[in-house]
Amino acid sequence: MKLYDWHAAPNPKRVRMFLAEKELDLTIIEVSGEGLRLRPDYVEKFPQAMVPMLELTDGRQIGESMAICRYLEELHPAPPLLGRNAYERAQVDMWERRAFDEGMMAAGEVFRNTADAFAGRGLPGYATPVPQIPALVERGRTRLDLFFRKFDRQLDKHRFIAGDHFTVADCTTFCSIEFAGWSDIHIPADCTRLLRWQREVAARPSARA
Amino acid sequence: MKLYDWHAAPNPKRVRMFLAEKELDLTIIEVSGEGLRLRPDYVEKFPQAMVPMLELTDGRQIGESMAICRYLEELHPAPPLLGRNAYERAQVDMWERRAFDEGMMAAGEVFRNTADAFAGRGLPGYATPVPQIPALVERGRTRLDLFFRKFDRQLDKHRFIAGDHFTVADCTTFCSIEFAGWSDIHIPADCTRLLRWQREVAARPSARA
Repeated sequence: MKLYDWHAAPNPKRVRMFLAEKELDLTIIEVSGEGLRLRPDYVEKFPQAMVPMLELTDGRQIGESMAICRYLEELHPAPPLLGRNAYERAQVDMWERRAFDEGMMAAGEVFRNTADAFAGRGLPGYATPVPQIPALVERGRTRLDLFFRKFDRQLDKHRFIAGDHFTVADCTTFCSIEFAGWSDIHIPADCTRLLRWQREVAARPSARA
Repeated sequence: MKLYDWHAAPNPKRVRMFLAEKELDLTIIEVSGEGLRLRPDYVEKFPQAMVPMLELTDGRQIGESMAICRYLEELHPAPPLLGRNAYERAQVDMWERRAFDEGMMAAGEVFRNTADAFAGRGLPGYATPVPQIPALVERGRTRLDLFFRKFDRQLDKHRFIAGDHFTVADCTTFCSIEFAGWSDIHIPADCTRLLRWQREVAARPSARA
């Protein structure tokens, strides 16, 4: 299997963290091209035009970070990163989605609508121009502040985001916070539980995947 | 188990379609309140402040439509609505997510940023005001047109969205298109494969769930 990757981008990193936690060694193919765009041969191969994408040995393709992680979890169940029973899996699923929608999407609202290199590319995956919308920058900043505080509260009772075990919800949360950092937005100093968690996750080898 | 529902909203409907296809009969509790807002006692019970939410018999809560569907699929595997093997599950996962991001989210961009009742509520789930952003209405319209055309192409090879079986990807696509209809945006006449599929899904009893 091959994982098509854009090393600098936040979404592929959450899948690489997942691979590192499982100690899975896939062939990684870098597809970033000129002007911070995907390489044209990759877009031709995978018109969905997003990363990451998992290509099976027979050429079949799986896009979407979480679809890839769930597929790999079925093939390689240990260590479990999506929960150990139906209820835990639902909690991981819910918190991963919250981290993505409230963290990753908000960080994307700020970054994609300000960076010059992304003029006309306000959203990923579109071949036609998507204009930048300045009002989304402020909305993204507000949402990130709420995201930090919600996840700080969640960590009051738990060591990790979705409970007492490291899961893919931690990967998504960690990469969302890194992505917010690109816009110089960081965890507020009074979110001490989230800062404690960030230090703990940053110390895992997978954080450098 | 109880499903907390807002009957008129698009996200709970995809879960009700899922329940109907599985012939699962849960207790449904309507939580819409005055001024098109969630009932305050529901928000107190579930501060995530979104619908649907599944409450287990012991009171534990599962939010997020897909987390609920995956949980119910584990408990009640027949008929399979998330795919019949690892690869199919990945395809369903990917297409469901595309339908949500490109269809449901785009329809939400148009509706939430125009409807008077949603002034200050440009996104669901936030207790603090999220201003409406007029530029998102046009972006949402453009995205919906691309969504219709992408899903029309996908149906060239398949009877249903993620392959030859009805899955949750069909529920999400169907409800997204209904939601677009609230803003009087409909499948273009030249998307004949998507129109054929829509007629077929609309004829299933679950379409009236």
